[in-house]
Amino acid sequence: MDISVDCVLFGFDGESLTLLLIEQRTDQGGPLSEEDLQMALPGDFVMEHEALEDAAARVLEELTGLDNVYLKQFHAFGSPDRVKGLKDQPWLHTFRAQPENRVITIAYFGLVSLHDHVPCASSFAGHAEWVDVGNLPDLAFDHNDITDLALATLREQLESKHIGFEMLPKKFTLRQLQSLHEIVLDKKLDKRNFRKNVKRMDHVVPLNEKERGVLHKPAQLFRFDANLTSES
Amino acid sequence: MDISVDCVLFGFDGESLTLLLIEQRTDQGGPLSEEDLQMALPGDFVMEHEALEDAAARVLEELTGLDNVYLKQFHAFGSPDRVKGLKDQPWLHTFRAQPENRVITIAYFGLVSLHDHVPCASSFAGHAEWVDVGNLPDLAFDHNDITDLALATLREQLESKHIGFEMLPKKFTLRQLQSLHEIVLDKKLDKRNFRKNVKRMDHVVPLNEKERGVLHKPAQLFRFDANLTSES
Repeated sequence: MDISVDCVLFGFDGESLTLLLIEQRTDQGGPLSEEDLQMALPGDFVMEHEALEDAAARVLEELTGLDNVYLKQFHAFGSPDRVKGLKDQPWLHTFRAQPENRVITIAYFGLVSLHDHVPCASSFAGHAEWVDVGNLPDLAFDHNDITDLALATLREQLESKHIGFEMLPKKFTLRQLQSLHEIVLDKKLDKRNFRKNVKRMDHVVPLNEKERGVLHKPAQLFRFDANLTSES
Repeated sequence: MDISVDCVLFGFDGESLTLLLIEQRTDQGGPLSEEDLQMALPGDFVMEHEALEDAAARVLEELTGLDNVYLKQFHAFGSPDRVKGLKDQPWLHTFRAQPENRVITIAYFGLVSLHDHVPCASSFAGHAEWVDVGNLPDLAFDHNDITDLALATLREQLESKHIGFEMLPKKFTLRQLQSLHEIVLDKKLDKRNFRKNVKRMDHVVPLNEKERGVLHKPAQLFRFDANLTSES
C-alpha cells in the first residue's frame, strides 16, 4: 500500500470561499485532452523518512508555491477502490511506478486569507487555480468526498476552534468577520446579534485604528488574540 | 510503508473511566519476561482489500472478542520513528515479516458501557484488561500519545456530539449522567446547574419509569434520543 497526503486549501477574499485545485497534466507537462481532463487537490506520496505534517507542507509548496500555511490533519481516506476511477487509472499509469497499488491518503485542510493578495499559485504539475466551493467540478479520485468532509470540519470548527481568523487580514472589521461567517456557514446572520456576540469574545480585540482608503465611513479595526480565548 | 489501525476503547462503569489494553505475548503465546513486558492498544495491519473502518472493527473483535462497538476515526499517527522504541523492536522482530518497515497507524476511539456487564475481553495475542485511565502504564510504540489525543477528543465531543450516551445504559439516571461528565471531564459539577442544563436538552428524554433494585430512593430513568438533538 502507498501513503499520500492531500491538501484541501480554502481561501477567503471577503466575498467568496474558494478551494485551490490543480489541473492534471500529461507526463510532458502539457494539458490533457478535454475528455481526460480532471482537477484534483494538491497531493502526493509521503517520503520514506518524512513526518505526515511535513509531507503535507512540502507537497503543497511544491505543487502550488504556497508555504507557511495553516494546515491541519482531519481524516484518513482509505477505501480500497478510491483510485480505481475510469479517468484516474490512465493518469496513474502515466505517473506511478505501481499504478494498481492501493493508496491511503491522509487529508489536511488549510486556510489562507486572500484579502491582501492572492497567493500566486504555481505548479510544475499543471495549472493551479482558486475555484468557488459552490461551483466545484467533478474532481479526480475521491477528492469531492475529501472536500465535503473538509468543508464540514471547517464549519464545525469555525467558532469552536476560532480557525476562521486564519482567513481574515491581521486587522479586520466586524463586517469582514460577519461576512466570513455568513459565507462559510452559508446563512445570513443578524448584524445586531452578531455584534453583541462578538463583544463578549475576549479574543476579538478592538484596536485604536480604523480602515483606510475606503469610500464608505471607515470602520473600527480588530485583531484576533489566541491567548485570550476561554479554551486554551 | 505499512498501514495499521489501533483502537482506543474507553469503558465507563459509573465510577471510573477505563481503557482496554492488551498484554504483548511471545510468539508461543506465553508471557514476556518482566523486563520486556509491555501493554498496548489493540491494533494490527489493514488487509489488502479492507476498508479502514472494517479493519478497526475486525482487529478489535479478533484481539478482544468485542463487536458492535461505537468506533470513530480520530487521527493518523505517522512519525517516522514511532515503532523504533528499544522495547518495541524485539517484539516487532518476533512478529513482523518486515520489522524495520515504517508503520503509519490510523487510530479509532471507541466507547462502551460497562454498566450492565463487563464485556469479556479475550485475546489470542495476550491477556486483555481494563485499566483506569488515571493510572496507565508506559505503553508500547506511541500508544500513550495516541491515548492522550483520544482522551482529548472524547472530552471535546462528550457534549458537542453527544457521544457520552454510548457509555451509559440504555436507560439511565441523571446521577449516572452527571457522574459520567464529572469523570470524563475530571471536574466536579454543581448538581442543580447540571440538572437545569439537562432539562433544556430535548435529546435527554424522561421515561415513566424508575430505577429498580436500589437501596436508595429510586430515581427517574431517562433515555437518549439522537433524533431530538438540535444539530442533525
